[in-house]
Amino acid sequence: MLLGELAVRFGLELRGEPELRITRVATLAQAEPGALSFLANPRYRRALAATRASAVVLAPADLESCPAAALVTDNPYLAYARIAAHLHPPPAVEPGVHPSAIVSPGARVAPSAAIGALALIEEEVEIGERVVVGPACILGRGARVGADSRLVGRVHLYPGIEIGARCLLHAGAVVGSDGFGFAPDRGRWVKVPQLGSVRVGDDVEIGANTTIDRGAIDDTVIEDGVKLDNQIQVGHNVVIGAHTAIAGCTGISGSTVLGQRCMIGGMVGFAGHLTIADDVVVTGCSLVSHSIHAAGSYSSGMPTVPTRAWRRMVAHLRKFGEKGKEQH
Amino acid sequence: MLLGELAVRFGLELRGEPELRITRVATLAQAEPGALSFLANPRYRRALAATRASAVVLAPADLESCPAAALVTDNPYLAYARIAAHLHPPPAVEPGVHPSAIVSPGARVAPSAAIGALALIEEEVEIGERVVVGPACILGRGARVGADSRLVGRVHLYPGIEIGARCLLHAGAVVGSDGFGFAPDRGRWVKVPQLGSVRVGDDVEIGANTTIDRGAIDDTVIEDGVKLDNQIQVGHNVVIGAHTAIAGCTGISGSTVLGQRCMIGGMVGFAGHLTIADDVVVTGCSLVSHSIHAAGSYSSGMPTVPTRAWRRMVAHLRKFGEKGKEQH
Amino acid sequence: MLLGELAVRFGLELRGEPELRITRVATLAQAEPGALSFLANPRYRRALAATRASAVVLAPADLESCPAAALVTDNPYLAYARIAAHLHPPPAVEPGVHPSAIVSPGARVAPSAAIGALALIEEEVEIGERVVVGPACILGRGARVGADSRLVGRVHLYPGIEIGARCLLHAGAVVGSDGFGFAPDRGRWVKVPQLGSVRVGDDVEIGANTTIDRGAIDDTVIEDGVKLDNQIQVGHNVVIGAHTAIAGCTGISGSTVLGQRCMIGGMVGFAGHLTIADDVVVTGCSLVSHSIHAAGSYSSGMPTVPTRAWRRMVAHLRKFGEKGKEQH
Repeated sequence: MLLGELAVRFGLELRGEPELRITRVATLAQAEPGALSFLANPRYRRALAATRASAVVLAPADLESCPAAALVTDNPYLAYARIAAHLHPPPAVEPGVHPSAIVSPGARVAPSAAIGALALIEEEVEIGERVVVGPACILGRGARVGADSRLVGRVHLYPGIEIGARCLLHAGAVVGSDGFGFAPDRGRWVKVPQLGSVRVGDDVEIGANTTIDRGAIDDTVIEDGVKLDNQIQVGHNVVIGAHTAIAGCTGISGSTVLGQRCMIGGMVGFAGHLTIADDVVVTGCSLVSHSIHAAGSYSSGMPTVPTRAWRRMVAHLRKFGEKGKEQH
Repeated sequence: MLLGELAVRFGLELRGEPELRITRVATLAQAEPGALSFLANPRYRRALAATRASAVVLAPADLESCPAAALVTDNPYLAYARIAAHLHPPPAVEPGVHPSAIVSPGARVAPSAAIGALALIEEEVEIGERVVVGPACILGRGARVGADSRLVGRVHLYPGIEIGARCLLHAGAVVGSDGFGFAPDRGRWVKVPQLGSVRVGDDVEIGANTTIDRGAIDDTVIEDGVKLDNQIQVGHNVVIGAHTAIAGCTGISGSTVLGQRCMIGGMVGFAGHLTIADDVVVTGCSLVSHSIHAAGSYSSGMPTVPTRAWRRMVAHLRKFGEKGKEQH
Repeated sequence: MLLGELAVRFGLELRGEPELRITRVATLAQAEPGALSFLANPRYRRALAATRASAVVLAPADLESCPAAALVTDNPYLAYARIAAHLHPPPAVEPGVHPSAIVSPGARVAPSAAIGALALIEEEVEIGERVVVGPACILGRGARVGADSRLVGRVHLYPGIEIGARCLLHAGAVVGSDGFGFAPDRGRWVKVPQLGSVRVGDDVEIGANTTIDRGAIDDTVIEDGVKLDNQIQVGHNVVIGAHTAIAGCTGISGSTVLGQRCMIGGMVGFAGHLTIADDVVVTGCSLVSHSIHAAGSYSSGMPTVPTRAWRRMVAHLRKFGEKGKEQH
């Protein structure tokens, strides 16, 4: 692509030669001529002056320090994302069913869909147009996958699960496992049947080895545009509001309802039966043990210090755990 | 089922018309006529008055507020669990080996067992009566699965693993991976062979993508009736006592021994080589770094507050990490 | 083996009868005659006096309390590791491709390699000498695996991933899933293409259900000799320095660089874009939210106390979160 074409196509202000040829994207530090780079995180500002990139996507404030051509925008990361997708489209997928895949006669697979090697499509499954079901995926009886979604491989949909359109599910993701429900009976546990399903909206991404439990009676719900990183655990009857993004290793206990457009850090733990407002930010390694009723940023992750100092801090705090010492 | 039949079968006190027909279970909020609901968690008490359920399982104290017929018991959740299992039995499984499954000639598979598509049963495996091995499961050489157990799909048993009767293992569970054992050798790590196995008792449930390491020399042991949620990590030579339940994302380091009937919250971390008494409760996101010798409830999960307040709390605590400030 | 042969082969000081026959290893507590045991962790010192082992590997200081023959060394755990590997070699693997495996015509598989049942080897994959690809592994287009590496089973390498020599990858490990990169666009998320790869060095171990994301533009890098336990999440563009060992359930956010020979406990969370020095120790359940510039031990995991005491501790700390109370 020519730089001028990119500027026009993505509505960016061009500073430099429109005939400049761009063949790929690269980081500021690793770029060679022919590459387009970007500056979105101020941490990398010092790399700008030394970059060998042919052009850089950046904000107006950084234009002055840029030694190369530039595409200027208020949201360089977004512009970069769109250009990178344009320059590096995913490999085309040929429709059809791999001979080693097992497709039950009662499944309905759109002719434009691609079913990979060693995949298993059980009865009554419905697979929409241009869906890619990667190798070794298992789609349980009656599962449905909307148009243009992609299950990369080894994705496991339990029976009856619904996945919307344009979703991306990564390897090892499990959707529809039983929720963790047991009734106590004189020192033993009796399983509570998990009878609900999981409904995943459109444009949802689910990371590798993430698990989403089916509802106990009603469904677990992942609304449109939700982005889940790897190794997240979503309990039964959780609802995740539209366009909420959650980083890796976070766990959400049963029946908790997250609002829309929340941003949840990694390794956050949510207790069950909570309500979290829209536009809540929770920083990494926090424990959300109570409902949050107002938008804003919340934290409880304790930052590391040298271990010896930490021991003193713990010893100090412990004094206040002793009875009769609540008053300091 | 008629309501009176349920009352008789499950030993519940009936309030209302015994001829009332019940076809399914539902939550208080979503129930339609014909549905049976239950009230076990006081959070949902306000939904009772408005429910359209035909009948509700509840405790005597809630009977007065119930607008429908009722089945009365001191443990409504347990009664609900049993009724739900009765009204919604799991789909019947046909015995036999799917043509795409690979069963080694030296494996012993009970005639009443069902082996799913693309499953692999290696040599010397023993599979008991009515066991269900779901699609794409791998049972390594010499693994054994007791009667009536179910491996939902994509479950991976390493060689020699023993699973008891009536167990349920969810997708992606791994039992028998190597423990994390390395000996330091001048700045490098030398692998310590992991020669033990894993013994899982009867009536154990293992959640999706949970991993259980084999022992270093002796075995890792999961006793009868243990319930493990999703994405739990169990290190080598851990022993989990009978009827202990552990919520998702918890990790247990090597050689730690948990007692019986413990209830462990989500995302709890256990250090290694600890002993935890029977009937211990650990709330979510706690770090158990020392042995616990007495039954009771233990915690160290810090609840979130607004990020700005949190920063002040951390700054306060940090002062006590500085040397010479141990005395307050 | 005779005890004297072990002493000579592994350079250990022998105390006792060189003709003593050793057939296996065992723990001090479980050993029967014929077994070799070891004492490395002082916690198990009291088991030494009562052991029935024929011989024990131990440090000079423990020699006096040993009731059996002994092999004496300053690093008994290392010596044990080597002897155990010698006495209990892994089962031999027969080279060849299982008839149910799918190997693309353009893949290059060394004749001495073994490809297991139901494995999928895509185009342009390169598999080195004596590599074992276990059952149901998926090697995406162009992935490469160096000599003597072993993928136990159900390992998923995305396209283009490079694995070095003598690596061991456990069941459910995923290498090369997309990093978690999204650009905000008026309340929605636009995916940032993840175009880099993952390069894994030699002698690396990757635990069960561990996930390693591909780089956004440049590669994610796992250097030689790194040991990763189960259920670890490694974000895009992370670099893990040589011979660093990380315990289970730890998560490392994108672009963080860990030094060499670090020892990271379980369930540690690393924020993104950090730099961690060589020889850093982080104890379990800590949050590393800032770069660490000096070797040493760091902590922030709060140990459990009885829940009632914990509530008082939290209440105390919370007072310092209120405005105007920063000054104590």
